[in-house]
Amino acid sequence: MEHDQQPEPTPERQSAASSSGRRQSPAGKRAPVIKDVAALANVSVSTVSRYLNDSPKLSEESRARIAHAIALLDYRPSRVARGLVNSAVQSIAVLSSNTTLYGSAMTIQGVEDEARANGYPVTIAKLDGESTAGLRASVNMVMDLNPGGVVVLNYDAVAREALAMLPDSVAKVAIAGDRVDDVAELDQIDLCENQAGRELTEYLLGLGHRTVIHVTIPGGGGGYSRTAGWEAALRGAGLPVPDVRHCTWNPKDAREIGRRIGRGVVSGDATTAVFAGNDEIAMGVIRGLADCGVRVPDDVSVVGFDDHPLADVWSPALTTYRQDFAAAGRRAARLLVERLGARSRGEDLPSRRVELPGELVIRDSEAAPRAR
Amino acid sequence: MEHDQQPEPTPERQSAASSSGRRQSPAGKRAPVIKDVAALANVSVSTVSRYLNDSPKLSEESRARIAHAIALLDYRPSRVARGLVNSAVQSIAVLSSNTTLYGSAMTIQGVEDEARANGYPVTIAKLDGESTAGLRASVNMVMDLNPGGVVVLNYDAVAREALAMLPDSVAKVAIAGDRVDDVAELDQIDLCENQAGRELTEYLLGLGHRTVIHVTIPGGGGGYSRTAGWEAALRGAGLPVPDVRHCTWNPKDAREIGRRIGRGVVSGDATTAVFAGNDEIAMGVIRGLADCGVRVPDDVSVVGFDDHPLADVWSPALTTYRQDFAAAGRRAARLLVERLGARSRGEDLPSRRVELPGELVIRDSEAAPRAR
Repeated sequence: MEHDQQPEPTPERQSAASSSGRRQSPAGKRAPVIKDVAALANVSVSTVSRYLNDSPKLSEESRARIAHAIALLDYRPSRVARGLVNSAVQSIAVLSSNTTLYGSAMTIQGVEDEARANGYPVTIAKLDGESTAGLRASVNMVMDLNPGGVVVLNYDAVAREALAMLPDSVAKVAIAGDRVDDVAELDQIDLCENQAGRELTEYLLGLGHRTVIHVTIPGGGGGYSRTAGWEAALRGAGLPVPDVRHCTWNPKDAREIGRRIGRGVVSGDATTAVFAGNDEIAMGVIRGLADCGVRVPDDVSVVGFDDHPLADVWSPALTTYRQDFAAAGRRAARLLVERLGARSRGEDLPSRRVELPGELVIRDSEAAPRAR
Repeated sequence: MEHDQQPEPTPERQSAASSSGRRQSPAGKRAPVIKDVAALANVSVSTVSRYLNDSPKLSEESRARIAHAIALLDYRPSRVARGLVNSAVQSIAVLSSNTTLYGSAMTIQGVEDEARANGYPVTIAKLDGESTAGLRASVNMVMDLNPGGVVVLNYDAVAREALAMLPDSVAKVAIAGDRVDDVAELDQIDLCENQAGRELTEYLLGLGHRTVIHVTIPGGGGGYSRTAGWEAALRGAGLPVPDVRHCTWNPKDAREIGRRIGRGVVSGDATTAVFAGNDEIAMGVIRGLADCGVRVPDDVSVVGFDDHPLADVWSPALTTYRQDFAAAGRRAARLLVERLGARSRGEDLPSRRVELPGELVIRDSEAAPRAR
């Protein structure tokens, strides 16, 4: 990298640079400052400053020269140069009980992309689910930054509790979860999980399976959840609803559940289809079934949820239900930006609910049940 | 959830609540306020306020009663109550060109956990690698929040460029990447990737493989990288260094590379071992080899990097090199907290470099080469 071709700065130069706070980066890479613009445009620094602050006291001609110099230098004025040093930087805060799972990470990236495009930095807070006190502390810490708006990844009960802790006055968007009616200034993005769970289950029943076992993600359940959709499909077909198998986010635990299901199949029970709460759980279940010599989809069909990047690479390629988490994050940020814009105009927006349905993705992990 | 048992607030109540900014959450869940503490302790609000601000003008007896009330109510004073309303909230900023990949997401969570434990909220900025202008804009946006310190996930050239754009004056920690000597106020966490790549390669050579093909992650390379370690191991064994196969983060592309390698094997070339730049790439390569009827590890050995949560569940279970990303993130945040603490005492810390070596994890995806 070109940076490495730079001579090592001596300690003196370093500390001098530090104390002066001056940027020290490889030649050519140094961020241009207002003085560079003034020099190139052949005007005074204060003239450039007037330009940056849209002062009317500026000739069209110098305005044009400065604009040209800024373009040439690829100059990015700091907030100070823009005279905004005393105005608060509004940020968008994201609250989530997990920031590393595929769905959460993609959602946060979507929020980040859209927020940045609109000039809002993003703060994230991993919600502390250990205790109400800890949860409130993690929420307060972010609220202390006075974010312009908050996005809550409402994927579990911890997030739902945090949602209820937020001041009414702050603009909020909740992604996923049940419909919320007791929180003010809230917009909601509905990932239509209930419909998705019903579709997946009905699809398996349509292949001839007599019932479908469901392995749920942590905090699954709730009227709008994929689990509720699974139940609805079974009841709709006049079938009894088997006990839900509860799993953690750890694929190793899913593998253990797969082994338990596998032992049942080997001993001749009626299990022929499994709907896993997400793709990683489906992968663990499939591996656990294989540990017992149970083949997918020949002996048992297994479908997942999300369309994880590895779902297609897994063997057999996973049939799943695609969720566009990045789009949900982008849309959430846009809803906030719109609400904040309306506020700045003294307007008030009604609560909005946006539906972002996913889609059934059929691959190779399911089949019609074999006569056993 | 209990929240749902609350009556729906009427629009009037909502807007009233909003305008007053008063918290509105289900009974029993309402965050206790300073008045509740005063009432329970049977003292005045201003007395509680004096307590919160460590005023000496307070009798031991009321001090004890207030402490007891705070404990009973699980009261968390806001910054306002603590009289900190006018003090800046120092945050820790994380810069990364990607926030969704397993390694990045885990590292960010580590930073978040440690920062929160020390009272610092975390801001993340996904670095815009499209253009220098965009990159500078994404860096400036975070710097506008005046973070107390910055953690750069130095996993690629974009992050390295961002590192050079940061003001010297701000405290920084770089995680991974080559040794950096031209950036002031910088601590570094070395994940010892070079050693890891060398170990993995030497392990495969030790099994009898004549050479090892390397499929690199984007931006791989650089003297401290796993790729450099692979090269060093081959040269150390007096072997020629085959061309590096460049992959994206998308497992589908890794699968295509696996197919190309597989076609070579089928047509009788000498390939018997592959070192993939990370576990997702290893999974893709293995699937691509399988597409050609090439078995792992029977025909070709494939090892990954990171110890992804699915590495153990994958079939065959992946032999890989475990990296403790969460520990790297936590350590980075601690280095910043120490540096900021020293600054607040008017002290200056020397630049520190912390080594966090990973460990070889042997599973089932490699074997001695078969005579072909």
